[in-house]
Amino acid sequence: MASKTKERIILESLDLFNAQGERNVSTNHIAAHLNMSPGNLYYHFRNKSDIIYQIFKNYELMVDTYLRVPEGRKIKVEDLLSYLDAVFNGLWAYRFLHRDLEHLLDNDDKLREDYRAFTLRCVRGVMSIIEALELSEIFSRQTEQQRQSKALNVWLIVTNWMTFLKTMHGTQEDRESNPKAIQHGVYQVLDFIVPHLREPEQAELAKLQEGYCFDEVLPGV
Amino acid sequence: MASKTKERIILESLDLFNAQGERNVSTNHIAAHLNMSPGNLYYHFRNKSDIIYQIFKNYELMVDTYLRVPEGRKIKVEDLLSYLDAVFNGLWAYRFLHRDLEHLLDNDDKLREDYRAFTLRCVRGVMSIIEALELSEIFSRQTEQQRQSKALNVWLIVTNWMTFLKTMHGTQEDRESNPKAIQHGVYQVLDFIVPHLREPEQAELAKLQEGYCFDEVLPGV
Repeated sequence: MASKTKERIILESLDLFNAQGERNVSTNHIAAHLNMSPGNLYYHFRNKSDIIYQIFKNYELMVDTYLRVPEGRKIKVEDLLSYLDAVFNGLWAYRFLHRDLEHLLDNDDKLREDYRAFTLRCVRGVMSIIEALELSEIFSRQTEQQRQSKALNVWLIVTNWMTFLKTMHGTQEDRESNPKAIQHGVYQVLDFIVPHLREPEQAELAKLQEGYCFDEVLPGV
Repeated sequence: MASKTKERIILESLDLFNAQGERNVSTNHIAAHLNMSPGNLYYHFRNKSDIIYQIFKNYELMVDTYLRVPEGRKIKVEDLLSYLDAVFNGLWAYRFLHRDLEHLLDNDDKLREDYRAFTLRCVRGVMSIIEALELSEIFSRQTEQQRQSKALNVWLIVTNWMTFLKTMHGTQEDRESNPKAIQHGVYQVLDFIVPHLREPEQAELAKLQEGYCFDEVLPGV
C-alpha cells in the first residue's frame, strides 16, 4: 500500500503531466506544487521515471480491473458500451501517457517490458469479451483466429487514437474540444464492431454510435 | 531533380537507418560508408534531420503516387490487394521511419506539419478508393460519414502496425521474420474490410487473406 505522501505525489504528477506535458514538468516542479522539499520527494521516488512507472502501474491496474467478462451473469450489449467508455475515459485520464508513449517506453526498459505483457493481456481480455458476446448471441460466431484478429484491430485502433489526435490537432495540451475528440474513438471502434453484431443489437448500437461522433476529427476531409 | 551524390546519400542513409536504427547512425557514419568526406556530405545536407526529411519526402511521393483510383477503367477487387501490398511494402522499405515516427516528428516541426497534411491526403485517398469500389459494386454502399470512418480506421491500423510489432518483438532491427510479421498487417486490414464487400468478392478475398497470416504475431495468445 502506497503511503499517503506517495499517493499525493502520484496524483499531482499525473495532473501536471496531463496539463503541461511530461517533458515540461521536472521533479522540482512537482515538489513545489505540493509545497514539499525536493529531498522529501526523492525519499519516495528515485527520479521522474520512477513516478511515471508508478502512474503506469495504476493505469494498468485500472484496465486489468475493468477488462473482464461479467461474473455470475450473461454479458449484455450495454456492457460493450461500458467497456468502450471506460477505455476512452482511461485514455483521457492518463492522456500524457498515451500522447507520448513511445518516448516514455524508449527511456525505460522496465516500462517497455511491462507494456509488452500488458498488450498481450489486453488482447486476450478483448478476445474473452468477444467470446462472451458470441455465447450471448450478440456477436456473430468467430473462429479463434478471427477473434484474435478482431481483438488486435480493436487494440490497434484504441492505442493509435491519441497519437492520431496529436498529429491532427497539434501538441497543445488540454484544449476544450479534446474530450469530444477522444470520445470519437468510441465511434471508430463501433464502426469496426457493429457489422459483426446480430440484429437487433446491430441497429441498437448503430444508433447509439451516433452520440459519439465528433465532426471536427478530420478537419477539411 | 536531386544530384547523383545527393541521391546516393539518401539511399545509403535509408539503408543504414533501417539496418541499425536512425539514432545509432551519425552523419559521419553515413559519409564513411560512402567513402566521402563529412564536408562533402554537409555540402548537400545541413544535418541528419535534413536527410531524414528528404527520405520522408521520397516516401510521401511514393504513397501519393500509388494511392490513386485507376484512371480510364473500373476499379477491380485485385486493385485492393495491390494497394495493400504497396502500403505494407512501403512500411518495410522505410521501416526506420515508422518504427520511430513520433520521435522523428518531435524533433522536426516541418516534418510534423508535412506529416499532418500527408495524413489528411491519405485518408482522403482511401475514401476515394472506397467510393470507387462502391461504384464498381464491390464494396457495399456507404454514406460520406461511414466512408470517412472506414478510411480513418484503415489509417489507424496501418500506421500503428510498426509500433505494435516493435512492442511485441522488441526493438531489434531486421530479424528474419520481420517481413512476414509486417505482411500480417494486410491480414488485419482485410479483416476489417472484407465484411463490407459484396459476394462473390467477399469469399474471394477471405481466401486470399489467409496467405498473409503470420502465426507468431501475438506470441502466447
